[in-house]
This record gives sequence, structure tokens and C-alpha cells, in this order.
Amino acid sequence: VSATSTLEAPQLVSSASRRPRIAVFDSGVGGLTVLRAIVALIPNADYIYFGDTARLPYGSKSRETVARYTVEAAKFLETHEPDILVIGCNTASALALYDIKAAVHVPVIGVIEPGAESAAQVSVSREAVVLATEATVGTHAYQRALARRGFATHEKACPLLVPLVEEGWIDHPVTEQVARIYMSEALRAAAHTDVLVLGCTHYPLIKALLRRVVPDSIAIVDSAEATAHAIFDELKYGAQPSQKRNSRPERRSPHAPRFTFYVTDSVEKFARMAPLFLGHPVLDVHHIDLGG
Amino acid sequence: VSATSTLEAPQLVSSASRRPRIAVFDSGVGGLTVLRAIVALIPNADYIYFGDTARLPYGSKSRETVARYTVEAAKFLETHEPDILVIGCNTASALALYDIKAAVHVPVIGVIEPGAESAAQVSVSREAVVLATEATVGTHAYQRALARRGFATHEKACPLLVPLVEEGWIDHPVTEQVARIYMSEALRAAAHTDVLVLGCTHYPLIKALLRRVVPDSIAIVDSAEATAHAIFDELKYGAQPSQKRNSRPERRSPHAPRFTFYVTDSVEKFARMAPLFLGHPVLDVHHIDLGG
Repeated sequence: VSATSTLEAPQLVSSASRRPRIAVFDSGVGGLTVLRAIVALIPNADYIYFGDTARLPYGSKSRETVARYTVEAAKFLETHEPDILVIGCNTASALALYDIKAAVHVPVIGVIEPGAESAAQVSVSREAVVLATEATVGTHAYQRALARRGFATHEKACPLLVPLVEEGWIDHPVTEQVARIYMSEALRAAAHTDVLVLGCTHYPLIKALLRRVVPDSIAIVDSAEATAHAIFDELKYGAQPSQKRNSRPERRSPHAPRFTFYVTDSVEKFARMAPLFLGHPVLDVHHIDLGG
Repeated sequence: VSATSTLEAPQLVSSASRRPRIAVFDSGVGGLTVLRAIVALIPNADYIYFGDTARLPYGSKSRETVARYTVEAAKFLETHEPDILVIGCNTASALALYDIKAAVHVPVIGVIEPGAESAAQVSVSREAVVLATEATVGTHAYQRALARRGFATHEKACPLLVPLVEEGWIDHPVTEQVARIYMSEALRAAAHTDVLVLGCTHYPLIKALLRRVVPDSIAIVDSAEATAHAIFDELKYGAQPSQKRNSRPERRSPHAPRFTFYVTDSVEKFARMAPLFLGHPVLDVHHIDLGG
């Protein structure tokens, strides 16, 4: 997973005359790690982020409710005329991707297929462990996506990792101990695993910690990063598949990214938590009410 | 906090001819610890429990939304003609108690006033620490209730304790380590504390662990138990205040409690989690839809 190549910053086909505009949806702050990974590849863009913070968590809601909420958000984001709409939420990607694609007229991409595709590119044993929330595990979306690529998959629900990350304990001995317990339970059930998929958008924040916990023989695939590469490919090459996963543009664009954030709950609460996830200042945050 | 006295099982004034009927509301499973504490005092009763599991957590919602949801649930529970309605949810007790009292025609009791009253009965220093969720801390309901009783209060948000309890790690070294961190942070800000209030309905499950972590000089007050005593008093003596906190009926009634449960999300998920909180079998669970 360490192959690199030299790439120019993408020359976007979707719009020659203006910066690309990329919309990212999540139920909360987790999708900001997806946004962060996209910004690292495509800094010269305008980003519109929507966090449905008043209605989270989506994980405990029915498929119909998740689809309704996500379609509402997608239609709102569509009014900003993005070149692509990113569903940076595992639950919504698992339960509502087709509803969203049917409801809007822009390209839509979720986080699950790119994560599964990245795993397929690095695995020899075709056995994978996916760490995710209980809700995402309950959908078995990763298991299905990986099964289509010939994998046996062990999905491990890790309900403590999101609250640990949200507490800010991203390099804390308690988090490491919890991660060791979860990993040893998972590997007991999947001994031939050679790839670990981070199937929750909070987990990239503890990737360094997980790297210490996970055996060296196991590659770690970050769905957020995989999704960013898929978007890079989509915007640069249209819908052509690319082999250039894990590549990085050599030079940063001199033009900084511009961010606009919309949330359905408290602006202050979002602005306080968001920089940890995004790694950029979070300033232009607006409240919006989509109804309950 | 260990005084005990001999009490008969309560002779309820509210109904001479039938077993008392007690309704308990919560957004999820936490209120089951309140129910458990009531059943320990009043075993010979019919219990109706409502868990609004599809719409949890209430903590991230506005006061208006919490009030609307809770009033809907209270009206549903009122149709079962309970002798008393218990709001076994700290967020709803903090934000919606007056709305509920205005909306139904049965006595209503929350968990915050009984918790504060219990603390007032054991504290000499009049300095208290309250452990609670971020949402409950945000309402400052315990701080106000304790201030009315002459207390300086340090409210400590403990966002990891609920997920640790829900993971079942109620006597786990990780939970003990987390509790030690939270307690040492809280006591650094409140050095004269002689009472700790458990301001979240999940925390009674880790009371034994907390007893190991908290200095012996600090009494632990469990809002669930305090509320059970208040209900015992209310049903036995009408609204007369009683000094017999922390008392236990010497003999159990020969009649076992009867439970009926209503939840708005998955019946199976509730039935799987609930016995840990209730300490009784959870069988008669019904799904109900109050709308979204």
C-alpha cells in the first residue's frame, strides 16, 4: 500500500473555467475525514459540507428514514451545483446510495465501494477484517462489496472507537488498549487476514495508533483515502477507472481550498469538534433546518 | 449512605383493590436502572416501560423537540392508567418535566430532584460532583437543583461511560481506567466534595467499580435509587415527604412484578440489551410507532 507515483494536480474535465466544486454529506463530523482526504488530493477546489447533526446517529434508524433524510440533504447540496456529491457516511452509503443517485442529477459516490476496491488491490489471502460501527456492520455492506471481489470478510463492530475519538483521545493508552482488544477478537475469527479496512469515517484519526496495534503483515485500507482517490479519478478522467490508487499529487496547488459548512444542529458544537477531523480551520458554518 | 431500616412492603393508598401500576419513560434502555430500583422497593406492581429507542439520543435535540417527543410518550403511557409516571431520563427530566406535568393527569416524577435531595441529606461540605452525559451537563439541571440546596457543584461530562456500559464492560479494567481519569479531573476542580451524584441512568451499572475509584470520604448517590425512594414515598404516603431514604423493605412481596415494554425501534435489539440494565427477564416487548 505504499506505491507512489508523480501526478499533476488534476485538470478537471467537468469545468474548464472554474474551480471544481465538491459536495460532501455526512450525518455528523465523521465525513470531515473524507473531506480532508479529498482536499489533500484536490486542494484547489470549493467544498460544501453538509452535516445532519440534529438527526444523527443514522445508524439506529430504518433504511426508509435514512434514505429520506439523505435524499433531502442531497437535494439541498445539489442546489450548490457541485461537480460531484460524496456520501461521506458509511450508513448512508450502505442504505441509501441508490435512492440518492435516483434523486439528483450529479455524479454520486459513496465510501464503501472505494474501500472494498482498495482492499482488493492489496490483498493476496482474500481474507479481510472490517472495523466499523455496529450500524454499518448490521448492513453487511462491506461484506457484500468484498464478497463480489472474492473475499471472506470478518466485520467487527467497535462501538467504543467513535466516542474515544470524539473525546479527543486519539493517541491515548485507553484507546490503544481498546483497539488491541477489538483487533485480537477480530483476528481470532479471521487468522489469514492480510488487509484491515477502516469502515468508519472516525477511524482515520486513530490510524497511527492502529498501525502500532495491527500486525505488520496486515495492510490498513482507509475508506476515506480510497474514496478521495476515486473522486480524483472521476473528476480527472471522467468515469474511467485508474490504477493510480495511493498516488499523491507531487505539488500542491497554490490556491487554497474554500470551505462552506451547513449543519442542522448547533453551529458552535460543530465548529468546536470539526477542526480535529478536518485538519483545517472551520469558519464558515451555517445552520439550516430540514425539518424533523 | 448506608443507613437501613425495616419497612413493610408499601400499602399503597392510590388503589386499595388492585396492584399499583407504574409507568416509566426513557429515550432508551437507561431508564431500566430506574425501573430496577423501583422494583426492588415495590415488587408487587405492574410496570409499563416506554423506550423511545428510534428517536434517541435526546441529548443532541432541542428543548422543544425533547418536550414534544416526551409529551407524546407520556400521553401514550397515560392510556395505561398508571398511578404514577416516572421520567427515567435525565435529559427529559431536565428539559421537559413541566411540559409533561401540564399534559397528563397523573403524578409525574423525574430523576433530578430526588438525586439532588439525596445528596443534600448526606453532604456536610455542600460541595458535590455530578457525573453525567454531555447533554445533561449542558442543561445544568443538577447544578440548579443542588444550588437551591446550598451546594457548589462541579458537573463532569463523561461521554465514554455510556458506550462502555452498553459494550457490557461494567467490570472491565478499561472502564476503571476511564473512570479514574474522569474522577481525578473532576476532583481537581472540586477538592472539598463529599458526595458524588450519578446523574446518568447508565451509571448505576458501574457503581461497584466507581466505589473502588472514588475516595472513601465521598458518598455515592444514585439518582435511580433516590427516585425509587421518592416513588415509594409518593405511593405510600401520598405527597408527604419521608425521611426514610436508603431504606429497604425487609421482605419481598410474594407477588412478582409484571412488566410490559414498548419501544419505537427494534424489539430484538431492546430485548437483547435490556436484561443487563433491568436485572429481570425481558419478555413482553412491543413495537409502537409514534411518528418521526
